[in-house]
Amino acid sequence: MNYRCVIRYDGSSYRGFQRQGNQARTIQSKLESLLSKAIEQPVEIFGSGRTDAGVHALAQVINFHLAQELSADQVMQTMNRYLPEDIQVLSCEAADARFHARLSATAKTYVYHIHVAPFPDAFRRKYEWHLEQWPDTELMNQAARQLLGRHDFRGFTEKQGAKKSTVRTIQAIQLETEEVSAKEMRIHVTVTANGFLYHMVRLIVGTLVEIALGRTAPDTIITILETGERSLATLAPAHGLFLSQVEYEEK
Amino acid sequence: MNYRCVIRYDGSSYRGFQRQGNQARTIQSKLESLLSKAIEQPVEIFGSGRTDAGVHALAQVINFHLAQELSADQVMQTMNRYLPEDIQVLSCEAADARFHARLSATAKTYVYHIHVAPFPDAFRRKYEWHLEQWPDTELMNQAARQLLGRHDFRGFTEKQGAKKSTVRTIQAIQLETEEVSAKEMRIHVTVTANGFLYHMVRLIVGTLVEIALGRTAPDTIITILETGERSLATLAPAHGLFLSQVEYEEK
Repeated sequence: MNYRCVIRYDGSSYRGFQRQGNQARTIQSKLESLLSKAIEQPVEIFGSGRTDAGVHALAQVINFHLAQELSADQVMQTMNRYLPEDIQVLSCEAADARFHARLSATAKTYVYHIHVAPFPDAFRRKYEWHLEQWPDTELMNQAARQLLGRHDFRGFTEKQGAKKSTVRTIQAIQLETEEVSAKEMRIHVTVTANGFLYHMVRLIVGTLVEIALGRTAPDTIITILETGERSLATLAPAHGLFLSQVEYEEK
Repeated sequence: MNYRCVIRYDGSSYRGFQRQGNQARTIQSKLESLLSKAIEQPVEIFGSGRTDAGVHALAQVINFHLAQELSADQVMQTMNRYLPEDIQVLSCEAADARFHARLSATAKTYVYHIHVAPFPDAFRRKYEWHLEQWPDTELMNQAARQLLGRHDFRGFTEKQGAKKSTVRTIQAIQLETEEVSAKEMRIHVTVTANGFLYHMVRLIVGTLVEIALGRTAPDTIITILETGERSLATLAPAHGLFLSQVEYEEK
Protein backbone atom coordinates (compact mmCIF):
# COMPACT_ATOMS: atom_id res chain seq x y z
CA MET A 1 0.00 0.00 0.00
CA ASN A 2 1.12 3.52 -0.82
CA TYR A 3 0.74 6.01 2.04
CA ARG A 4 0.65 9.76 1.60
CA CYS A 5 1.29 11.81 4.73
CA VAL A 6 1.65 15.46 5.62
CA ILE A 7 4.38 16.20 8.11
CA ARG A 8 5.50 19.26 10.05
CA TYR A 9 8.98 19.84 11.44
CA ASP A 10 11.24 22.30 13.14
CA GLY A 11 14.37 21.97 11.04
CA SER A 12 16.64 23.70 13.58
CA SER A 13 18.52 20.59 14.60
CA TYR A 14 18.49 18.67 11.31
CA ARG A 15 20.88 18.62 8.39
CA GLY A 16 17.95 19.10 6.02
CA PHE A 17 15.31 16.71 4.75
CA GLN A 18 17.32 14.40 2.58
CA ARG A 19 19.11 11.29 3.78
CA GLN A 20 22.86 11.53 3.36
CA GLY A 21 25.40 8.79 2.97
CA ASN A 22 26.78 9.24 6.45
CA GLN A 23 25.17 9.28 9.86
CA ALA A 24 23.84 12.85 9.45
CA ARG A 25 20.66 13.65 11.32
CA THR A 26 18.09 14.34 8.61
CA ILE A 27 14.30 14.27 8.54
CA GLN A 28 14.19 11.51 5.94
CA SER A 29 16.58 9.21 7.79
CA LYS A 30 14.73 9.84 11.06
CA LEU A 31 11.42 8.83 9.47
CA GLU A 32 12.88 5.87 7.61
CA SER A 33 14.67 4.36 10.58
CA LEU A 34 11.62 4.81 12.78
CA LEU A 35 9.20 3.25 10.27
CA SER A 36 11.59 0.46 9.34
CA LYS A 37 11.89 -0.49 13.00
CA ALA A 38 8.15 -0.26 13.67
CA ILE A 39 7.17 -2.22 10.54
CA GLU A 40 10.17 -4.55 10.68
CA GLN A 41 11.00 -4.07 7.03
CA PRO A 42 13.08 -1.46 5.20
CA VAL A 43 11.03 1.58 4.21
CA GLU A 44 12.01 4.24 1.71
CA ILE A 45 10.45 7.66 2.05
CA PHE A 46 9.90 10.12 -0.80
CA GLY A 47 9.52 13.79 0.06
CA SER A 48 7.94 16.46 -2.14
CA GLY A 49 11.33 18.14 -2.10
CA ARG A 50 14.43 18.58 -0.04
CA THR A 51 14.53 21.30 2.51
CA ASP A 52 17.99 22.63 3.41
CA ALA A 53 19.60 22.27 6.80
CA GLY A 54 17.72 24.51 9.24
CA VAL A 55 14.66 25.01 7.00
CA HIS A 56 11.28 24.18 8.54
CA ALA A 57 8.09 22.66 7.17
CA LEU A 58 4.49 23.42 8.07
CA ALA A 59 3.21 20.86 5.60
CA GLN A 60 5.77 18.72 3.79
CA VAL A 61 4.24 15.86 1.84
CA ILE A 62 5.84 12.42 1.85
CA ASN A 63 4.88 9.00 0.54
CA PHE A 64 6.09 5.45 1.13
CA HIS A 65 5.04 1.92 0.30
CA LEU A 66 4.44 -0.75 2.92
CA ALA A 67 3.85 -4.43 2.21
CA GLN A 68 1.46 -4.69 5.15
CA GLU A 69 -2.08 -3.40 4.87
CA LEU A 70 -2.13 -1.07 7.85
CA SER A 71 -4.79 1.58 8.22
CA ALA A 72 -3.53 5.09 7.50
CA ASP A 73 -4.54 6.03 11.04
CA GLN A 74 -2.41 3.25 12.50
CA VAL A 75 0.57 4.36 10.45
CA MET A 76 0.14 7.95 11.59
CA GLN A 77 -0.24 7.00 15.25
CA THR A 78 2.78 4.72 15.15
CA MET A 79 4.92 7.44 13.64
CA ASN A 80 3.75 10.12 16.07
CA ARG A 81 4.34 7.83 19.02
CA TYR A 82 8.01 7.37 18.20
CA LEU A 83 8.88 10.68 16.55
CA PRO A 84 10.83 13.30 18.50
CA GLU A 85 8.93 16.45 19.52
CA ASP A 86 10.24 18.45 16.58
CA ILE A 87 8.57 16.31 13.90
CA GLN A 88 4.87 15.46 13.63
CA VAL A 89 2.69 13.61 11.18
CA LEU A 90 -0.39 15.80 10.69
CA SER A 91 -2.36 13.47 8.43
CA CYS A 92 -2.01 10.20 6.56
CA GLU A 93 -4.08 8.55 3.88
CA ALA A 94 -3.97 5.65 1.46
CA ALA A 95 -2.89 6.96 -1.93
CA ASP A 96 -3.02 5.74 -5.49
CA ALA A 97 -0.17 3.29 -6.16
CA ARG A 98 1.35 5.72 -8.67
CA PHE A 99 1.30 8.72 -6.33
CA HIS A 100 4.81 10.09 -5.75
CA ALA A 101 5.29 13.04 -3.37
CA ARG A 102 7.85 14.77 -5.59
CA LEU A 103 6.97 13.68 -9.12
CA SER A 104 3.23 14.20 -8.71
CA ALA A 105 3.56 17.66 -7.18
CA THR A 106 2.26 20.48 -9.36
CA ALA A 107 3.14 23.46 -7.16
CA LYS A 108 4.83 24.34 -3.91
CA THR A 109 4.60 27.31 -1.58
CA TYR A 110 7.27 28.60 0.74
CA VAL A 111 6.95 31.34 3.34
CA TYR A 112 9.93 33.35 4.56
CA HIS A 113 9.64 35.38 7.78
CA ILE A 114 11.64 38.56 8.32
CA HIS A 115 11.72 40.46 11.60
CA VAL A 116 12.81 44.10 11.50
CA ALA A 117 13.64 45.51 14.93
CA PRO A 118 16.53 46.96 16.93
CA PHE A 119 16.95 43.53 18.55
CA PRO A 120 15.74 39.97 17.89
CA ASP A 121 12.70 38.27 19.43
CA ALA A 122 13.81 35.71 22.01
CA PHE A 123 10.85 33.47 21.23
CA ARG A 124 10.89 33.58 17.44
CA ARG A 125 14.60 33.95 16.75
CA LYS A 126 14.84 30.45 15.33
CA TYR A 127 11.98 31.04 12.91
CA GLU A 128 12.65 34.46 11.39
CA TRP A 129 15.54 36.45 9.93
CA HIS A 130 16.31 39.41 12.15
CA LEU A 131 17.23 42.68 10.41
CA GLU A 132 18.28 45.79 12.31
CA GLN A 133 18.07 48.17 9.37
CA TRP A 134 14.64 49.25 8.13
CA PRO A 135 13.97 48.05 4.58
CA ASP A 136 12.07 49.93 1.90
CA THR A 137 9.15 47.56 1.44
CA GLU A 138 7.87 49.45 -1.60
CA LEU A 139 11.15 48.80 -3.43
CA MET A 140 11.02 45.21 -2.26
CA ASN A 141 7.48 44.81 -3.59
CA GLN A 142 8.37 46.22 -6.98
CA ALA A 143 11.40 43.97 -7.28
CA ALA A 144 9.38 40.93 -6.18
CA ARG A 145 6.87 41.49 -8.95
CA GLN A 146 9.67 41.18 -11.53
CA LEU A 147 10.08 37.53 -10.54
CA LEU A 148 6.53 36.56 -11.49
CA GLY A 149 6.09 34.21 -14.43
CA ARG A 150 8.30 31.82 -16.34
CA HIS A 151 12.02 32.55 -16.18
CA ASP A 152 15.39 30.87 -16.27
CA PHE A 153 16.32 31.06 -12.60
CA ARG A 154 19.92 29.80 -13.01
CA GLY A 155 21.19 32.97 -11.29
CA PHE A 156 19.01 32.07 -8.27
CA THR A 157 20.59 28.70 -7.58
CA GLU A 158 24.01 27.21 -7.01
CA LYS A 159 26.06 25.93 -9.93
CA GLN A 160 25.41 22.27 -10.48
CA GLY A 161 27.14 19.94 -12.89
CA ALA A 162 23.86 18.55 -14.25
CA LYS A 163 22.35 19.89 -17.44
CA LYS A 164 18.88 19.99 -15.94
CA SER A 165 16.58 22.83 -16.84
CA THR A 166 16.64 25.84 -14.52
CA VAL A 167 13.43 27.25 -15.97
CA ARG A 168 10.61 27.58 -13.46
CA THR A 169 7.34 29.47 -13.21
CA ILE A 170 6.62 31.64 -10.18
CA GLN A 171 2.85 31.76 -9.99
CA ALA A 172 2.63 34.09 -7.01
CA ILE A 173 4.93 36.11 -4.82
CA GLN A 174 3.51 38.22 -2.05
CA LEU A 175 4.89 40.44 0.69
CA GLU A 176 2.73 40.87 3.73
CA THR A 177 3.92 43.45 6.23
CA GLU A 178 2.84 43.40 9.83
CA GLU A 179 3.55 46.52 11.85
CA VAL A 180 4.33 45.77 15.48
CA SER A 181 5.37 49.29 16.51
CA ALA A 182 7.09 52.31 15.00
CA LYS A 183 10.40 50.49 15.38
CA GLU A 184 9.35 46.91 14.73
CA MET A 185 7.71 45.06 11.88
CA ARG A 186 7.53 41.67 10.29
CA ILE A 187 7.57 40.86 6.59
CA HIS A 188 6.20 37.56 5.38
CA VAL A 189 7.25 36.63 1.86
CA THR A 190 5.14 33.92 0.24
CA VAL A 191 6.30 32.34 -3.03
CA THR A 192 4.41 29.76 -5.07
CA ALA A 193 6.04 28.07 -8.06
CA ASN A 194 5.72 24.90 -10.10
CA GLY A 195 9.09 23.91 -8.69
CA PHE A 196 12.09 25.35 -6.90
CA LEU A 197 15.82 25.08 -7.51
CA TYR A 198 18.37 24.52 -4.76
CA HIS A 199 18.57 27.69 -2.59
CA MET A 200 16.08 29.46 -4.87
CA VAL A 201 13.78 30.99 -2.25
CA ARG A 202 16.68 31.99 -0.01
CA LEU A 203 18.50 33.65 -2.91
CA ILE A 204 15.34 35.49 -3.94
CA VAL A 205 14.61 36.72 -0.42
CA GLY A 206 18.23 37.63 0.29
CA THR A 207 18.41 39.66 -2.92
CA LEU A 208 15.07 41.38 -2.28
CA VAL A 209 16.36 42.42 1.14
CA GLU A 210 19.61 43.79 -0.33
CA ILE A 211 17.52 45.88 -2.71
CA ALA A 212 15.20 47.01 0.07
CA LEU A 213 18.18 48.09 2.19
CA GLY A 214 19.68 50.02 -0.72
CA ARG A 215 22.78 47.84 -0.79
CA THR A 216 22.25 46.83 -4.40
CA ALA A 217 20.52 48.41 -7.40
CA PRO A 218 16.71 48.19 -7.58
CA ASP A 219 16.96 46.40 -10.94
CA THR A 220 19.22 43.62 -9.63
CA ILE A 221 16.46 41.03 -9.96
CA ILE A 222 16.08 41.80 -13.67
CA THR A 223 19.84 41.74 -14.15
CA ILE A 224 20.16 38.35 -12.51
CA LEU A 225 17.27 36.93 -14.54
CA GLU A 226 18.86 38.25 -17.74
CA THR A 227 22.48 37.35 -17.06
CA GLY A 228 22.11 34.32 -14.80
CA GLU A 229 24.81 35.87 -12.63
CA ARG A 230 24.62 34.06 -9.26
CA SER A 231 27.26 36.34 -7.73
CA LEU A 232 24.80 39.27 -7.82
CA ALA A 233 22.35 37.36 -5.62
CA THR A 234 22.48 37.14 -1.82
CA LEU A 235 21.59 34.09 0.25
CA ALA A 236 19.16 34.64 3.13
CA PRO A 237 19.67 32.43 6.20
CA ALA A 238 17.86 29.07 6.34
CA HIS A 239 16.03 29.51 9.63
CA GLY A 240 13.43 32.03 8.33
CA LEU A 241 12.16 29.62 5.68
CA PHE A 242 9.13 27.33 5.88
CA LEU A 243 7.77 24.94 3.26
CA SER A 244 4.10 25.70 3.73
CA GLN A 245 2.13 23.87 1.02
CA VAL A 246 2.51 21.28 -1.71
CA GLU A 247 -0.16 20.97 -4.37
CA TYR A 248 -1.17 17.98 -6.45
CA GLU A 249 -3.53 17.56 -9.31
CA GLU A 250 -6.51 15.89 -7.71
CA LYS A 251 -8.49 13.45 -9.80
CA MET B 1 21.62 56.57 39.01
CA ASN B 2 18.96 53.92 39.43
CA TYR B 3 17.85 52.26 36.19
CA ARG B 4 14.60 50.38 35.76
CA CYS B 5 14.40 48.07 32.74
CA VAL B 6 11.92 45.61 31.32
CA ILE B 7 13.48 42.46 29.92
CA ARG B 8 12.22 39.47 27.94
CA TYR B 9 13.83 36.05 27.88
CA ASP B 10 13.48 32.53 26.66
CA GLY B 11 14.36 30.60 29.80
CA SER B 12 14.92 27.28 28.01
CA SER B 13 18.67 27.22 28.45
CA TYR B 14 18.98 28.99 31.80
CA ARG B 15 19.01 27.69 35.35
CA GLY B 16 16.43 30.30 36.27
CA PHE B 17 16.69 34.02 36.94
CA GLN B 18 18.65 34.12 40.15
CA ARG B 19 22.43 34.11 40.39
CA GLN B 20 23.74 31.00 42.11
CA GLY B 21 26.95 30.54 44.03
CA ASN B 22 28.52 28.44 41.31
CA GLN B 23 29.04 29.02 37.60
CA ALA B 24 25.41 28.21 36.73
CA ARG B 25 24.05 29.97 33.66
CA THR B 26 21.31 32.24 34.99
CA ILE B 27 19.64 35.37 33.65
CA GLN B 28 20.85 37.51 36.54
CA SER B 29 24.48 36.42 36.25
CA LYS B 30 24.38 36.90 32.47
CA LEU B 31 23.11 40.47 32.88
CA GLU B 32 25.47 41.29 35.73
CA SER B 33 28.61 40.03 34.03
CA LEU B 34 27.70 41.81 30.80
CA LEU B 35 26.94 45.14 32.49
CA SER B 36 29.94 44.93 34.83
CA LYS B 37 32.21 44.43 31.84
CA ALA B 38 30.63 47.20 29.78
CA ILE B 39 30.58 49.72 32.64
CA GLU B 40 33.87 48.51 34.14
CA GLN B 41 32.49 48.35 37.64
CA PRO B 42 30.62 45.64 39.54
CA VAL B 43 26.86 45.87 39.02
CA GLU B 44 24.19 44.15 41.08
CA ILE B 45 20.85 43.48 39.47
CA PHE B 46 17.55 43.17 41.33
CA GLY B 47 14.72 41.30 39.63
CA SER B 48 11.02 41.59 40.46
CA GLY B 49 11.19 37.93 41.35
CA ARG B 50 13.00 34.73 40.55
CA THR B 51 11.78 32.62 37.72
CA ASP B 52 12.59 28.90 37.92
CA ALA B 53 14.89 27.07 35.53
CA GLY B 54 13.13 26.88 32.16
CA VAL B 55 10.52 29.54 32.93
CA HIS B 56 10.26 32.42 30.44
CA ALA B 57 9.54 36.13 30.80
CA LEU B 58 7.65 38.44 28.47
CA ALA B 59 8.24 41.40 30.77
CA GLN B 60 10.44 40.87 33.80
CA VAL B 61 11.34 44.10 35.62
CA ILE B 62 14.86 44.67 36.93
CA ASN B 63 16.72 47.59 38.47
CA PHE B 64 20.36 48.41 39.13
CA HIS B 65 22.44 51.35 40.24
CA LEU B 66 25.32 52.74 38.22
CA ALA B 67 27.78 55.40 39.41
CA GLN B 68 28.01 56.85 35.89
CA GLU B 69 25.27 59.08 34.55
CA LEU B 70 24.48 57.24 31.35
CA SER B 71 21.28 57.88 29.46
CA ALA B 72 18.73 55.09 29.83
CA ASP B 73 18.84 54.65 26.06
CA GLN B 74 22.61 54.13 26.15
CA VAL B 75 22.27 51.52 28.86
CA MET B 76 19.58 49.67 26.91
CA GLN B 77 21.57 49.73 23.67
CA THR B 78 24.73 48.55 25.37
CA MET B 79 22.90 45.64 26.95
CA ASN B 80 21.12 44.61 23.77
CA ARG B 81 24.35 44.76 21.80
CA TYR B 82 26.06 42.20 24.04
CA LEU B 83 23.15 40.05 25.14
CA PRO B 84 22.60 36.62 23.56
CA GLU B 85 19.59 36.24 21.26
CA ASP B 86 17.45 34.68 23.99
CA ILE B 87 17.43 37.78 26.25
CA GLN B 88 16.36 41.31 25.28
CA VAL B 89 15.98 44.60 27.08
CA LEU B 90 12.64 46.01 25.90
CA SER B 91 12.81 49.36 27.68
CA CYS B 92 14.91 51.25 30.19
CA GLU B 93 14.30 54.40 32.20
CA ALA B 94 15.83 56.40 35.02
CA ALA B 95 13.98 55.51 38.22
CA ASP B 96 13.55 57.05 41.63
CA ALA B 97 16.57 56.22 43.82
CA ARG B 98 14.33 54.19 46.14
CA PHE B 99 12.78 52.07 43.38
CA HIS B 100 13.43 48.35 43.89
CA ALA B 101 12.14 45.88 41.31
CA ARG B 102 11.07 43.33 43.92
CA LEU B 103 10.24 45.37 47.00
CA SER B 104 8.29 48.03 45.10
CA ALA B 105 6.20 45.55 43.12
CA THR B 106 2.51 45.52 44.01
CA ALA B 107 1.31 42.72 41.72
CA LYS B 108 2.57 40.19 39.22
CA THR B 109 0.93 38.28 36.43
CA TYR B 110 1.95 34.91 35.05
CA VAL B 111 0.56 33.12 32.01
CA TYR B 112 0.70 29.35 31.61
CA HIS B 113 0.13 27.80 28.17
CA ILE B 114 -1.36 24.32 27.78
CA HIS B 115 -1.65 22.53 24.44
CA VAL B 116 -4.15 19.69 24.16
CA ALA B 117 -3.65 17.53 21.08
CA PRO B 118 -2.78 13.97 20.04
CA PHE B 119 0.81 15.17 19.44
CA PRO B 120 2.90 18.24 20.35
CA ASP B 121 3.50 21.30 18.18
CA ALA B 122 7.05 21.26 16.79
CA PHE B 123 7.26 25.05 16.86
CA ARG B 124 5.77 25.74 20.28
CA ARG B 125 6.87 22.67 22.21
CA LYS B 126 9.28 24.70 24.33
CA TYR B 127 6.61 27.19 25.32
CA GLU B 128 3.57 25.08 26.23
CA TRP B 129 2.69 21.98 28.20
CA HIS B 130 1.47 19.26 25.88
CA LEU B 131 -1.42 17.10 27.11
CA GLU B 132 -2.76 14.18 25.13
CA GLN B 133 -5.88 13.65 27.21
CA TRP B 134 -8.75 16.09 26.81
CA PRO B 135 -9.39 18.05 30.04
CA ASP B 136 -12.79 19.14 31.35
CA THR B 137 -12.33 22.91 31.15
CA GLU B 138 -15.56 23.55 33.04
CA LEU B 139 -14.27 21.63 36.06
CA MET B 140 -10.97 23.45 35.69
CA ASN B 141 -12.71 26.81 35.65
CA GLN B 142 -14.74 26.03 38.74
CA ALA B 143 -11.67 24.86 40.63
CA ALA B 144 -9.69 27.92 39.51
CA ARG B 145 -12.29 30.25 40.96
CA GLN B 146 -11.77 28.69 44.40
CA LEU B 147 -8.26 30.14 44.42
CA LEU B 148 -9.42 33.73 44.17
CA GLY B 149 -8.79 36.00 47.12
CA ARG B 150 -6.60 35.93 50.20
CA HIS B 151 -5.46 32.46 51.29
CA ASP B 152 -2.63 30.67 52.98
CA PHE B 153 -0.98 29.03 49.97
CA ARG B 154 1.49 26.91 51.97
CA GLY B 155 0.16 23.78 50.22
CA PHE B 156 1.02 25.37 46.87
CA THR B 157 4.72 25.80 47.53
CA GLU B 158 7.67 23.72 48.61
CA LYS B 159 8.52 23.36 52.29
CA GLN B 160 11.00 26.00 53.30
CA GLY B 161 12.76 26.41 56.60
CA ALA B 162 11.94 30.10 56.88
CA LYS B 163 9.01 31.30 58.93
CA LYS B 164 7.90 33.73 56.26
CA SER B 165 4.21 34.20 55.62
CA THR B 166 2.67 32.03 52.94
CA VAL B 167 -0.45 34.18 52.72
CA ARG B 168 -1.03 35.76 49.33
CA THR B 169 -3.94 37.32 47.49
CA ILE B 170 -4.88 36.08 44.02
CA GLN B 171 -6.61 39.04 42.41
CA ALA B 172 -7.50 37.32 39.17
CA ILE B 173 -7.28 33.88 37.63
CA GLN B 174 -8.58 33.29 34.16
CA LEU B 175 -8.76 30.40 31.73
CA GLU B 176 -8.94 31.28 28.09
CA THR B 177 -9.56 28.38 25.72
CA GLU B 178 -8.65 28.53 22.09
CA GLU B 179 -10.13 25.84 19.88
CA VAL B 180 -7.82 24.85 17.05
CA SER B 181 -9.83 21.88 15.78
CA ALA B 182 -12.08 19.14 17.13
CA LYS B 183 -8.95 17.36 18.41
CA GLU B 184 -6.77 20.29 19.37
CA MET B 185 -7.07 23.24 21.72
CA ARG B 186 -4.99 25.56 23.80
CA ILE B 187 -5.69 26.73 27.33
CA HIS B 188 -4.06 29.91 28.59
CA VAL B 189 -4.16 30.30 32.37
CA THR B 190 -3.51 33.84 33.61
CA VAL B 191 -2.93 34.45 37.32
CA THR B 192 -2.45 37.81 39.00
CA ALA B 193 -1.47 38.05 42.67
CA ASN B 194 0.20 40.47 45.03
CA GLY B 195 3.04 37.99 45.25
CA PHE B 196 3.89 34.38 44.44
CA LEU B 197 5.55 31.63 46.44
CA TYR B 198 8.18 29.28 45.03
CA HIS B 199 6.50 26.92 42.48
CA MET B 200 3.09 28.45 43.25
CA VAL B 201 1.80 28.93 39.68
CA ARG B 202 3.12 25.58 38.54
CA LEU B 203 1.52 23.80 41.50
CA ILE B 204 -1.77 25.58 40.85
CA VAL B 205 -1.80 24.75 37.14
CA GLY B 206 -0.63 21.18 37.67
CA THR B 207 -3.40 20.59 40.22
CA LEU B 208 -6.06 22.24 38.03
CA VAL B 209 -5.05 19.90 35.20
CA GLU B 210 -5.25 16.84 37.48
CA ILE B 211 -8.77 17.89 38.40
CA ALA B 212 -9.69 18.57 34.77
CA LEU B 213 -8.45 15.12 33.76
CA GLY B 214 -10.42 13.46 36.54
CA ARG B 215 -7.29 12.16 38.23
CA THR B 216 -8.04 13.89 41.50
CA ALA B 217 -11.23 15.07 43.24
CA PRO B 218 -12.83 18.33 42.01
CA ASP B 219 -12.52 19.82 45.51
CA THR B 220 -8.77 19.20 45.76
CA ILE B 221 -8.03 22.94 45.56
CA ILE B 222 -10.20 23.61 48.61
CA THR B 223 -8.66 20.69 50.47
CA ILE B 224 -5.13 21.93 49.82
CA LEU B 225 -6.05 25.48 50.87
CA GLU B 226 -7.60 24.15 54.07
CA THR B 227 -5.00 21.56 55.02
CA GLY B 228 -1.86 23.02 53.44
CA GLU B 229 -1.11 19.51 52.19
CA ARG B 230 1.53 19.95 49.47
CA SER B 231 1.47 16.25 48.58
CA LEU B 232 -2.05 16.66 47.13
CA ALA B 233 -0.79 19.22 44.61
CA THR B 234 0.88 18.43 41.28
CA LEU B 235 3.73 20.38 39.72
CA ALA B 236 3.27 21.45 36.08
CA PRO B 237 6.44 21.60 33.96
CA ALA B 238 8.41 24.86 33.86
CA HIS B 239 8.47 25.43 30.11
CA GLY B 240 4.77 26.44 29.79
CA LEU B 241 5.16 29.34 32.21
CA PHE B 242 5.73 33.01 31.38
CA LEU B 243 6.09 35.96 33.74
CA SER B 244 4.01 38.44 31.78
CA GLN B 245 3.60 41.58 33.86
CA VAL B 246 4.84 43.27 37.01
CA GLU B 247 2.90 46.17 38.49
CA TYR B 248 4.09 49.07 40.64
CA GLU B 249 2.32 51.82 42.44
CA GLU B 250 2.94 54.80 40.25
CA LYS B 251 3.28 58.14 41.98
